[in-house]
Amino acid sequence: MSFEPLISKIREKNNPTVMGLDPILDYVPNYIKEKAVKEYGDTFKAAGEAIFEFNKGLIDAAAELVPAVKPQSAFYEMYGIEGLIALERTIEYAKAAGLYVILDVKRNDIGNTAEAYAKAFIGETKLFNSTAKATPVDCVTVNPYLGIDGIKPFIDIAAENDKSMFILVKTSNKSSGDFQDLSIGDTTLYRTVGAKVEQWGAPYISESGYSPCGAVVGATYPAQLTELRAAMPHTFFLIPGYGAQGGAANDIVGAFDKNKNGAIVNSSRALMCAYQKAGDDGTNFKACTRDAVIAMRDDINSVL
Amino acid sequence: MSFEPLISKIREKNNPTVMGLDPILDYVPNYIKEKAVKEYGDTFKAAGEAIFEFNKGLIDAAAELVPAVKPQSAFYEMYGIEGLIALERTIEYAKAAGLYVILDVKRNDIGNTAEAYAKAFIGETKLFNSTAKATPVDCVTVNPYLGIDGIKPFIDIAAENDKSMFILVKTSNKSSGDFQDLSIGDTTLYRTVGAKVEQWGAPYISESGYSPCGAVVGATYPAQLTELRAAMPHTFFLIPGYGAQGGAANDIVGAFDKNKNGAIVNSSRALMCAYQKAGDDGTNFKACTRDAVIAMRDDINSVL
Repeated sequence: MSFEPLISKIREKNNPTVMGLDPILDYVPNYIKEKAVKEYGDTFKAAGEAIFEFNKGLIDAAAELVPAVKPQSAFYEMYGIEGLIALERTIEYAKAAGLYVILDVKRNDIGNTAEAYAKAFIGETKLFNSTAKATPVDCVTVNPYLGIDGIKPFIDIAAENDKSMFILVKTSNKSSGDFQDLSIGDTTLYRTVGAKVEQWGAPYISESGYSPCGAVVGATYPAQLTELRAAMPHTFFLIPGYGAQGGAANDIVGAFDKNKNGAIVNSSRALMCAYQKAGDDGTNFKACTRDAVIAMRDDINSVL
Repeated sequence: MSFEPLISKIREKNNPTVMGLDPILDYVPNYIKEKAVKEYGDTFKAAGEAIFEFNKGLIDAAAELVPAVKPQSAFYEMYGIEGLIALERTIEYAKAAGLYVILDVKRNDIGNTAEAYAKAFIGETKLFNSTAKATPVDCVTVNPYLGIDGIKPFIDIAAENDKSMFILVKTSNKSSGDFQDLSIGDTTLYRTVGAKVEQWGAPYISESGYSPCGAVVGATYPAQLTELRAAMPHTFFLIPGYGAQGGAANDIVGAFDKNKNGAIVNSSRALMCAYQKAGDDGTNFKACTRDAVIAMRDDINSVL
């Protein structure tokens, strides 16, 4: 299965977009924040409530149009336990709305520690005489710096549970080249990591031709996207950096295969804060997000 | 300040050991588990209670003897919100016992996302009209794959708040060489990352000669430890892999400077599960852990 559920949702909605859910309080409409503070004071609890209320509206606005959402764990962890409760409620709400949930956690460790992370997100935790799901999502992001020891537990647990992962290969940020672009013989680190990701996923390729080991490749590096698509024919791509970070539709076209498959493009701020750009006070944030989602879908489809 | 509070605690206790707190349920003595299940059933809540009860005992047993503890986030995240509540309680209990708390989270991201993580653990989160601390510890582990964009927010926030971090350089696992040992011109990736860590910390060196940018270097690679100590004279080391992973006292001696300073050695399982090795049923786990802590301290000090 691996990425099959995501791929079928992308086809059904004709939209290879994932909506990022990075709900820092500055993004949340004032009326939602005021209500939360009135009820819970200037507290983490109020922050958690405001975030979940905002996310619910974003999901309501976009669920019909997008196949997936990607909550960024950092923006929930920064609000402590209350933030993490908001994350759990958001995941539950998104799944009930039929969305594929990619949790952006960039976890990495070795042996039974990596296994603990994999169990937490895409597997099951052993309790005393039973097992239970801690924070169940469809897919997580992981960091490859520790080598296969850090990835294998995710692959095994993804294969058992029909889940998937995106492994960082060439990230969208300015300094991604600090290490990723270093020359290794006649190649580079990101190409070497990309080749390993392709190899690690090879035994698990499913109907659509993709393995559960996806890769993160930034929209801000179009040449590398095209190059990696050719070098990694069985690796599904998650593409950050479209919109706010500067990537345009023409920059990402090379990430797709000849069937217009093989990649999903993330946008967080441009979709979540569409109301701010539209000069709205936040009252109509859902309609503004909906318009922005349609514009992004049409922008991407225009080049495919 | 940076690592000064840790260094003074190491000197005071004459012990460069950090006790890892990786409390998977298999490690927890039966009588603690039975009590938790009796009270809360076969649930995450019971797991959280059992974990915290065990951690309390471990901290009680070791607080007089060790300068620091290192909870591994994965083993709390795998028990969901209840696991994270146990983590918060453990951090609070350890700080009240005068211990330096290193949270092993290996977080990594870019820009305002990396900043959100840094605020969550070593800074403060902005709420509505105030700021508050989400999961306050003294030090975190971070992963360097995304380059300086992913590290700078941690450095800035550490400098503001007298906190510190350990950046992965050469990890203790078998496959750490998959990428870390690759040749980059006449050097390797881990050496290149090590040089950057030394450089990033340089503007923030404090009295003892160390910067807030520490490095993780595994006990399982003694030659690299010695080599990196020479190449990174202002970088404090966190050394995993002693004991259960196979590193011995003689393997880590090269990580220390001529003043017997510059490194702290982690042990998790060998200290937490000392009662199992001693053939105890768990009733006397505190005494067994205390003996194991003393044995480890004396083993390390014998080679310094």
